[in-house]
Amino acid sequence: MQINDFKYEIIHEGTITSVPGVFSASCHCGIRRFKDDISVITIPGNTVCSAVFTKNKFAAAPVLVTKRQLEKNRNINAIIINSGIANACTGPEGVKNAEETISIASNHLGIDKANIIVSSTGRIGKQLPIDKIEKGISVCSNNLKSENGHLTARAILTIDKHPKEFALKFISEGKEIMLGGIAKGSVMVEPNMATTLSFIASNINIGEKLLDEMLFECVDDTFNCISTDGCQSTNDMIVVICNGVSGAEIKGRESAIYEKFKSALHMCLENLSKKVVEDGEGATKVIEINVKGAASKKEARDIGKKIANSILFKSAMYGEDVNWGRIAAAIGSADNGIEGGRVDIYLDNILIMGKGMAKDYDEDAAFALLKERHIRFYIDLNSGNDSSRILTNDITYEYIKINALYKKQK
Amino acid sequence: MQINDFKYEIIHEGTITSVPGVFSASCHCGIRRFKDDISVITIPGNTVCSAVFTKNKFAAAPVLVTKRQLEKNRNINAIIINSGIANACTGPEGVKNAEETISIASNHLGIDKANIIVSSTGRIGKQLPIDKIEKGISVCSNNLKSENGHLTARAILTIDKHPKEFALKFISEGKEIMLGGIAKGSVMVEPNMATTLSFIASNINIGEKLLDEMLFECVDDTFNCISTDGCQSTNDMIVVICNGVSGAEIKGRESAIYEKFKSALHMCLENLSKKVVEDGEGATKVIEINVKGAASKKEARDIGKKIANSILFKSAMYGEDVNWGRIAAAIGSADNGIEGGRVDIYLDNILIMGKGMAKDYDEDAAFALLKERHIRFYIDLNSGNDSSRILTNDITYEYIKINALYKKQK
Repeated sequence: MQINDFKYEIIHEGTITSVPGVFSASCHCGIRRFKDDISVITIPGNTVCSAVFTKNKFAAAPVLVTKRQLEKNRNINAIIINSGIANACTGPEGVKNAEETISIASNHLGIDKANIIVSSTGRIGKQLPIDKIEKGISVCSNNLKSENGHLTARAILTIDKHPKEFALKFISEGKEIMLGGIAKGSVMVEPNMATTLSFIASNINIGEKLLDEMLFECVDDTFNCISTDGCQSTNDMIVVICNGVSGAEIKGRESAIYEKFKSALHMCLENLSKKVVEDGEGATKVIEINVKGAASKKEARDIGKKIANSILFKSAMYGEDVNWGRIAAAIGSADNGIEGGRVDIYLDNILIMGKGMAKDYDEDAAFALLKERHIRFYIDLNSGNDSSRILTNDITYEYIKINALYKKQK
Repeated sequence: MQINDFKYEIIHEGTITSVPGVFSASCHCGIRRFKDDISVITIPGNTVCSAVFTKNKFAAAPVLVTKRQLEKNRNINAIIINSGIANACTGPEGVKNAEETISIASNHLGIDKANIIVSSTGRIGKQLPIDKIEKGISVCSNNLKSENGHLTARAILTIDKHPKEFALKFISEGKEIMLGGIAKGSVMVEPNMATTLSFIASNINIGEKLLDEMLFECVDDTFNCISTDGCQSTNDMIVVICNGVSGAEIKGRESAIYEKFKSALHMCLENLSKKVVEDGEGATKVIEINVKGAASKKEARDIGKKIANSILFKSAMYGEDVNWGRIAAAIGSADNGIEGGRVDIYLDNILIMGKGMAKDYDEDAAFALLKERHIRFYIDLNSGNDSSRILTNDITYEYIKINALYKKQK
């Protein structure tokens, strides 16, 4: 892949453990039935860790504990992730259990408690079974391998159907820089801060402040621009850990390697966040909503989100009907200063509404576009220079089945 | 019905034409297939008309034209309503057609153009067929009767299954005051200003300013507190017309009759708005979300709406599973200063989350409550004195079918 005359090599079947020295292990310890439910990822050396977290007021215990860990220390060598129980709405006992998970991992891995963070995903309101977690971490700590990335990418999934993995490398001043990550998420996904779990590792050398800013900027354009159902989770976090062993160092924003690595991180986050949308529960379509001509980036994004979160729009996409009136109604319901009479709506290259008015268009051509799995809309507000792109999917019988009848199916 | 020691008589099978002198007619003129699609409602005398309208930036031509009519003159004697075409996103031609509808009605009814308003509901982006409308108005104008209220309540429906009608009377100082109304709406319903079409008539004597304030306050607690799918229409309006022929006059907020009539209007709007929720597309449940202990009414309503519009919550209600984690996640995602650790969630009288933490509760008792058609949640934020109540419904296969596969079914 070539971006700005610069070459990145996307690694075939790349994952987080594609990064040299990064190991992982996952196993089934009994938090949920059948599937692997506990994972350990380790990255050696002096690292710098940056993370973004859910803004939900019911942020889960692992979010609170990991935040506190990172406030004290950015040198992180291990992440412990469990699936099946979210450890959210669990009060002081939940916090104690998250801390206890770190203590157990510290004993088994021989890593100082200060260098370990935790993450959870699953059902809200249940306490973690610490005895099972101890057993699981014990098994994992004896099985850490660079071959286990795919296994771990599967173990962190909940209702997702497909693992989400990505890795790339590039050469800068003769040094090989690698970046690899995994993610989970197919429900409770909304563009507001980190929206799923994602763990990314690299062997680049970068300072805290630069990595923080870079992660924030890249997440804002990727994970914060996807929406499957408008619901925001209590457990979301995106973590990037860099250990510098490649020898390549980013000294500042002006250094040549800065933009190269930022593009790489952006590509990784974009790839993983797109995979989350593609795996949206029960979804049959991936829909790109490009909003331009906005007075601000926020305005563009708010409007894109209004469309993406309109159940009527999502239903129409499932039914393969353009029904642009629902798009117009969604745009018009956003709280801002736009003028309806300036707005154009395109389905791909077909103008379906111009300056707020219905347009005659080739319905067969439109229908052919809507039959595709990937659908693109372009909205021009014609009132400014800012833009945003939101990725979303349709809503289907299957979504309702998964989210309504899960109990009856058990 | 007795409110504050004061008696209202709910009129059996009451409707808008239960109010003396109010006539209506409806017929099929061919805007849509099969069903009646044009209606005329007349109210004689010197009237005062108040209305609230959608805030959507793509407000339809009839909304723009009716707003303009009311800016010039509040004495309204006729409402023309068509179903099948929304006359939204139709540009200057749409406005001309709405004005033309008024001219045609003026000719046929012998009422000055200044005293007529228009309203439309249906598909966005199509122009009104003025020839058909002329034919329809001509038929209606020769058929205006006080018996036609039920017919008109049906003719204004689109995908709704049931007509929505209500009327009551009460005696004040020996004078009989009547109030009757009709409404439509079962989709694109969200609590933001007028959310459906509703037309209400009364024979009370009230001034413009008092009626405006009263309508605004009553709508804010009723139609603005329902949500079926979080989508806001381009065509919504609620219209109240009072002609004073009862002889009963409201001279000011301090007059004894003021509160009596305000309660009556509130009751009427509450009844009609509840019927909209009960008729929510494909819905199997009516869910009441009571939020108290909020720092402001807005905060209470925002949180109630976050829950009501959460597809995950709505799916869980359909599946008859309390899944309160989805309620907590929705509350926590609202943009305000609440503390998760203070929040209590009750399913009816069962405490399911206390101070932000999972509670042990009787799952059989909870399941029994969820099997009912009406479900009540009480959320206590424990941080203030304001409250709000939102009415919503579940999301079902049927909703997706109606809104996705309508084209394939034709």
